[in-house]
Amino acid sequence: MSLSVELLSTGDELLTGQVTDTNSPWLMDRLWDAGVMVTRKTLVGDDRAVLEAVLRETTGRADLVVMSGGLGPTEDDLTAECVARVMGVPLELHAPSLAAIEERFKRFGRPMTPNNAKQARFPRGATVHPNRWGTAPGFSVQLGRARLTCLPGVPAEYRGLAGEVVLPWVVDRLGAAPATRVLKLVGVGESAADQAMRPVMDDPAWRGVRFGYRAHFPEVHLKWTVDPPDAEPRAAAIESAVRAIFGESVWGSGKEELAALVVDRLTARGQKVAVAESCTGGLLATLLTAVPGASAVLDLGVVAYANSVKVGVLGVPGPLLAAHGAVSEPVARAMAEGVRTAGDATWGIGITGVAGPGGGTPEKPVGTVHLALAGPAGTTAVARLYRWDRERVRLAAAFEALDLLRRALG
Amino acid sequence: MSLSVELLSTGDELLTGQVTDTNSPWLMDRLWDAGVMVTRKTLVGDDRAVLEAVLRETTGRADLVVMSGGLGPTEDDLTAECVARVMGVPLELHAPSLAAIEERFKRFGRPMTPNNAKQARFPRGATVHPNRWGTAPGFSVQLGRARLTCLPGVPAEYRGLAGEVVLPWVVDRLGAAPATRVLKLVGVGESAADQAMRPVMDDPAWRGVRFGYRAHFPEVHLKWTVDPPDAEPRAAAIESAVRAIFGESVWGSGKEELAALVVDRLTARGQKVAVAESCTGGLLATLLTAVPGASAVLDLGVVAYANSVKVGVLGVPGPLLAAHGAVSEPVARAMAEGVRTAGDATWGIGITGVAGPGGGTPEKPVGTVHLALAGPAGTTAVARLYRWDRERVRLAAAFEALDLLRRALG
Repeated sequence: MSLSVELLSTGDELLTGQVTDTNSPWLMDRLWDAGVMVTRKTLVGDDRAVLEAVLRETTGRADLVVMSGGLGPTEDDLTAECVARVMGVPLELHAPSLAAIEERFKRFGRPMTPNNAKQARFPRGATVHPNRWGTAPGFSVQLGRARLTCLPGVPAEYRGLAGEVVLPWVVDRLGAAPATRVLKLVGVGESAADQAMRPVMDDPAWRGVRFGYRAHFPEVHLKWTVDPPDAEPRAAAIESAVRAIFGESVWGSGKEELAALVVDRLTARGQKVAVAESCTGGLLATLLTAVPGASAVLDLGVVAYANSVKVGVLGVPGPLLAAHGAVSEPVARAMAEGVRTAGDATWGIGITGVAGPGGGTPEKPVGTVHLALAGPAGTTAVARLYRWDRERVRLAAAFEALDLLRRALG
Repeated sequence: MSLSVELLSTGDELLTGQVTDTNSPWLMDRLWDAGVMVTRKTLVGDDRAVLEAVLRETTGRADLVVMSGGLGPTEDDLTAECVARVMGVPLELHAPSLAAIEERFKRFGRPMTPNNAKQARFPRGATVHPNRWGTAPGFSVQLGRARLTCLPGVPAEYRGLAGEVVLPWVVDRLGAAPATRVLKLVGVGESAADQAMRPVMDDPAWRGVRFGYRAHFPEVHLKWTVDPPDAEPRAAAIESAVRAIFGESVWGSGKEELAALVVDRLTARGQKVAVAESCTGGLLATLLTAVPGASAVLDLGVVAYANSVKVGVLGVPGPLLAAHGAVSEPVARAMAEGVRTAGDATWGIGITGVAGPGGGTPEKPVGTVHLALAGPAGTTAVARLYRWDRERVRLAAAFEALDLLRRALG
């Protein structure tokens, strides 16, 4: 069973660059996991003639058209009206939707305007999809050769309703669902990952499997989707093969986040980390403290740009700084050990480097970074030479520091 | 003169959610500034039949079609071939482009494959646009009723060539260019900004001016575009009226960035700032140190999650913490003053609050934040109650701290 799907988004704000349509990539990603590549995506403004033309065109070509936007209460919101005109049917009030909208306004203590009642009117014969995330219900109709599903453009509402209405319909139409796996790496570039993956990707046993990469800098995510039959066991067998290749470089899978994983492991052990950052300037602390509950595992972070701070706050010996320079392995080690002591933590991390664009020298060019991790069993250090801009050098260094700690936590 | 413009992007990776098309919003934004709202944008995959159909459709409707993608060296790159077929002309080698590609490969010391020569072949009669940002030249042809301009999909190359080729052509066709202004606020919500802007937006003198907002959380950007005649003086007169409304809340204009502006002003004064962060967890330091050259103005940042760090590193008096709690104005003040002293800086910033989702109490609910700025003339403090999630509470607090310092720097 194959399925032809088109996406359609409406809204003037999408055509002036004010708002970027993030709904379509979100749904495309999930449709691709389900085994369908969207054929076309069209963006149009709030214009009756254009909307009606594009509704005719898309529903004349595809099995499923998912439309987003134009379900609000204002005069610019034309979706239900245009769909009804193209279908040649009137709009009809849907009493349960009106009651739900009235109830919603009462609950939030806001006055309901006559315009909001418009959001309860749908083309005759439509299936209405109640919206648990906002005011405007979605709806589906049969039009041309397509099922046409219209959803609100607000991302949380679009995603909620698409998950509830569109994806189950697609899976049902396709029959058995494919299986998807994602494994996540840090410290391995995309081309190196591609090289290493070749033996798996070229293995005749996995012919027809859709392999892909997602670069979430500085991470690389490896992804594969296996169609039925035996989708799950085959996806699992590929996972074993991939894990055998990358070993400890695989830090997680699925929807896991590296900082959250580190915070969870520290929490489980009842341990704390303290961080001392030079070139990353607080980014490592920011990543850790972005995780809810991070206060249980991080008491102290120090941004030590100046040598005086490295000496005064972190206790890096002045002669060490003089002998090796601030960007050096001994100083990274001393920062890690110093902040571990100052913060009375199990683990201490030190990062020092040249983020650029200035500050590079022939011996220590831009992108030179030393990372150190101090722990109960001593201190380890790694050196890196990143070939990116300031922002990426900082991101890569902060993530590799997280990864150092992740490996130490086992 | 009005102009009908459509955008077209090709690439399977755009239809599987792997890559989001950021080129189109970028160009839409600049076209809107130039006075044109794009009519449609279409995304299609690397499929000959679909590409040829959509080329016929778009060039039959619009005055200008800007296409992105499909100019690479691989078999999936079909743009030149499909355009030539729809035009009914052959592809021809463009000798200067081939020479430029060969030269580029020589410069980077990489071997050139026969595939790369494909990138020098264009439909007969095409105007070739040399690419200073990458390998693949763009080209323009007349097709149907439209000028069709094909650009590479790599963002830097697309933007470079669109700026060099597309925007001047549009401005030339439209005649005189409109004038656009952007003013930037922080600490003012979008609906409050909209209320305050009403007298200007409803002023009959500015009929026809396109007013808009961009929410770059936690900033709000006010934008207006004025068509000729007298575009520049009228845009300037509106700027005066808007500045009169918002006063000091306007921190900048155009492409200015708040953190960079603060770093520049500190640099110009030869002053330094030290920051002590609790709920923002390093985010303020990260924003400041993201600016190249920040090392001249920031020596010390402290992430002080634990009370022991507030006392030990920042010198916040223990009894003060006990009396008021960590989330309080006196503690924010003591953090600002303590880090100012510890960092030997002109300015000290202290931030303490409840970012959530946990940790709220009836007296200090999630979103409570105290900010303090210590400086040569003493210490000032502000209190906020943000009604957002953890990520937004942290962002809003860090930006308001930057803004406190910006106001103090005058």
